[in-house]
Amino acid sequence: MTRITLEAANRIIEVALATAAEKKLKPLAVIVLDAGGHAIAYARQDGASPGRFQIAGGKAYGAVMLGLGGRAQMARAEAQAYFIAAANGALDGRLVPVPGGVLVTDASGTVIGAVGISGDTSDNDEACAVAGIEAAGLNAQP
Amino acid sequence: MTRITLEAANRIIEVALATAAEKKLKPLAVIVLDAGGHAIAYARQDGASPGRFQIAGGKAYGAVMLGLGGRAQMARAEAQAYFIAAANGALDGRLVPVPGGVLVTDASGTVIGAVGISGDTSDNDEACAVAGIEAAGLNAQP
Amino acid sequence: MTRITLEAANRIIEVALATAAEKKLKPLAVIVLDAGGHAIAYARQDGASPGRFQIAGGKAYGAVMLGLGGRAQMARAEAQAYFIAAANGALDGRLVPVPGGVLVTDASGTVIGAVGISGDTSDNDEACAVAGIEAAGLNAQP
Amino acid sequence: MTRITLEAANRIIEVALATAAEKKLKPLAVIVLDAGGHAIAYARQDGASPGRFQIAGGKAYGAVMLGLGGRAQMARAEAQAYFIAAANGALDGRLVPVPGGVLVTDASGTVIGAVGISGDTSDNDEACAVAGIEAAGLNAQP
Repeated sequence: MTRITLEAANRIIEVALATAAEKKLKPLAVIVLDAGGHAIAYARQDGASPGRFQIAGGKAYGAVMLGLGGRAQMARAEAQAYFIAAANGALDGRLVPVPGGVLVTDASGTVIGAVGISGDTSDNDEACAVAGIEAAGLNAQP
Repeated sequence: MTRITLEAANRIIEVALATAAEKKLKPLAVIVLDAGGHAIAYARQDGASPGRFQIAGGKAYGAVMLGLGGRAQMARAEAQAYFIAAANGALDGRLVPVPGGVLVTDASGTVIGAVGISGDTSDNDEACAVAGIEAAGLNAQP
Repeated sequence: MTRITLEAANRIIEVALATAAEKKLKPLAVIVLDAGGHAIAYARQDGASPGRFQIAGGKAYGAVMLGLGGRAQMARAEAQAYFIAAANGALDGRLVPVPGGVLVTDASGTVIGAVGISGDTSDNDEACAVAGIEAAGLNAQP
Repeated sequence: MTRITLEAANRIIEVALATAAEKKLKPLAVIVLDAGGHAIAYARQDGASPGRFQIAGGKAYGAVMLGLGGRAQMARAEAQAYFIAAANGALDGRLVPVPGGVLVTDASGTVIGAVGISGDTSDNDEACAVAGIEAAGLNAQP
């Protein structure tokens, strides 16, 4: 197993924000968590509201803790709402089950962390996360 | 970027309550928060229940933290209920996504705080907040 | 039993802040709570840090919940530290046992609320609270 | 009043970590908060333990919320331990009253945020925070 270095996390954030600039998205918050759900790096663009930390953080935290990207969590929420609600309670309300939370895996498929982005639409948030993860040479699982 | 002074916050509360008196509304609680979601001023009229602090406070806190007024939050809750539910969990249950939470912006459009009102109907609560904000020379975003 | 009206609470805050201005104190936060420990009115002067809400609030909340002013709590803390520490845990950490939390009683001696002030020295905070309470025609118990 | 932009926050982190490298310090975590105590940027170096987020965060959060740098908080804790303990409870346990939490002020002396660093000795943590803040053209108050 490898891990996400601070250098890789900074690269993920740099490319995610450059992608957002190209797409002319609203100001974003981007967080990179390790395999334990703990922050490695975070950046909130000027104009993004302060609670974006909790939203981006919840997207990434839920992904790591459940081993499921935000898009997969959303599908599960639509199929079985009470499971995701209960999981959220069990995780102290720290799960935000929508796109924009993306698992990061290494070459062997092991989860080594997650990226969470919030600020624009969930689909755009996710696209920026994927772009950042791939630019860092890692695999993204939305 | 400017900020909401105590003088402006007191003016917001004064005009919000005068508006409520004209409309013969039920007793209200009015809170004014800064751009970080922290209270600048609060007033609860005689006869308003004690939990109005938490309801008015949650309307304003959610507005600041998400950068969305209560009416916009309500629309999002109706379109995607589980997102607002999850956001609320991520914000420690301090979000009340209905009208009556109104963002305050300065001339450049920067969010400098929010006003939350509770006690009458959500629509009436919101009307009093907007009246107060505008009387203080600031911009209201419901 | 009477109660602290919003008008009385506003008078308490007005006189407390006028007293602070005369004494040239640092910016203050002032909260007035009812007999249930719930906020009636709050004002934070420009330049007072945001956490003054929690400090002033804790001074007043502990006073109401224990029926003891902040100065009396401090004496108890010095005599029996573990009791105040345990009481604080039982009250969810919301007790700040220093001067500046002042009980408000009516003519019959019944507790009808409390005032909490934070921003300058504890002794100065308390003096402003007492001045405000007395100006509103109520009795202060530090 | 100005604010700490993301560009300034990134510069603070960059110079703080370069200072640590020069001094050959242990791996650090560095957080930059806005005037409301909300994260703008965070970086945790490879090898720094995950809880450094909470320690660095608590140093900066307590500074913003109380308007006192970590060194000033430590002096208060040594003079009146139960006050800082109670303030910590009132702030939900999020205060870490030691050096390494440094207030950031603008040219007029207004608090616009704080930097928190954890990983080496408190004194070294603080020196890196001050170096970063000054490199960004802002004023540091330990």
